[in-house]
Amino acid sequence: MNFSSKLLENAVGEFTKLPGIGQKTALRLVLHLLDQDREDVDRFSRSMTKLRNEIQHCRVCHNISDYTVCEVCSSHRRDRGTICVVEDTRDVMAIENTNQYSGVYHVLGGLISPMDGVGPTDLQVDSLIERIRDGEVKEVIFALSATMEGDTTVFYLHKKLKDFNINLSTIARGIAFGGELEYVDEITLGRSITTRVPYENSLAR
Amino acid sequence: MNFSSKLLENAVGEFTKLPGIGQKTALRLVLHLLDQDREDVDRFSRSMTKLRNEIQHCRVCHNISDYTVCEVCSSHRRDRGTICVVEDTRDVMAIENTNQYSGVYHVLGGLISPMDGVGPTDLQVDSLIERIRDGEVKEVIFALSATMEGDTTVFYLHKKLKDFNINLSTIARGIAFGGELEYVDEITLGRSITTRVPYENSLAR
Repeated sequence: MNFSSKLLENAVGEFTKLPGIGQKTALRLVLHLLDQDREDVDRFSRSMTKLRNEIQHCRVCHNISDYTVCEVCSSHRRDRGTICVVEDTRDVMAIENTNQYSGVYHVLGGLISPMDGVGPTDLQVDSLIERIRDGEVKEVIFALSATMEGDTTVFYLHKKLKDFNINLSTIARGIAFGGELEYVDEITLGRSITTRVPYENSLAR
Repeated sequence: MNFSSKLLENAVGEFTKLPGIGQKTALRLVLHLLDQDREDVDRFSRSMTKLRNEIQHCRVCHNISDYTVCEVCSSHRRDRGTICVVEDTRDVMAIENTNQYSGVYHVLGGLISPMDGVGPTDLQVDSLIERIRDGEVKEVIFALSATMEGDTTVFYLHKKLKDFNINLSTIARGIAFGGELEYVDEITLGRSITTRVPYENSLAR
């Protein structure tokens, strides 16, 4: 592209480094910012720098947080006996949005993926074992993606944790609420038949 | 959404103010930035603030520029006798990318649109007339969108400029190179028949 300004070209270049943002989109976004008041652009820029410089990871669950211990871990209304193991902060947000979970979390910071060079030591596994060793934990729920990487990670963690005297579970897999049978993939549909549940357990609350 | 951090929520909120960026996309972009080095995030932020604070509008053509007079207007290789009138800087970039135009530009900064409350006085019309009055100009090319607003603006400008001793033209409309007839809309196809050109003029150079 033929930019009339180096400043513009730089700003567009920075935006195209973001995932899923091409040059045309970047230009549209930058020109939009250029139309805003200086204070607004300043606020935009400052919010990013501030976030990057001041964000912390919860000392207990490793979720990103404004404090050394996150709000969930420091809340007295959460059940510390149940730990939900997730990949990253987005999963915490998704589960919190359901309002169905009152335990605490453990954020691994990724999934085991030999193809991407991510092994167990790159994840927050040791600190999970430490939390369990502390004795308060009664159940660990694996809430990881239903992918090869997710399954591998669950397999690995299960092997590490099975000798502790705690319950290990994974979130249920099957047909989504509102899902139409004919569009469900074969593996999910097949498994949902073999892992069928008693009718009275199946009702959405 | 249920953010685990106010800092994160702020940053996501700033991103969602950008056009076409929803909350999920904003979160993805911000978490990507959070994974980068502090210097990278700093460079990202600074490029926006710097752009907004230091950008100028060319004193002659009103295109955005790093200098008081833009590179096109100050170039000795551009023909100052031909002015191409466009809506905004994106159009200048698009035309520059064709490498087919060696004249100069005039950026209106918008199109006449009574529905959006944009009248001729909101656009750089007076300075265009002044440039023509200065005497060097031989041709004005209208390169505006083929929309109601674009047509209205051309109509207005034509009325203002028709008494000057200069050529007024608009960029050609018709079927795009590579376009298939059956997918062309009826108006474009009909007009392209009534405004047909001699064969030897129609060849793409």
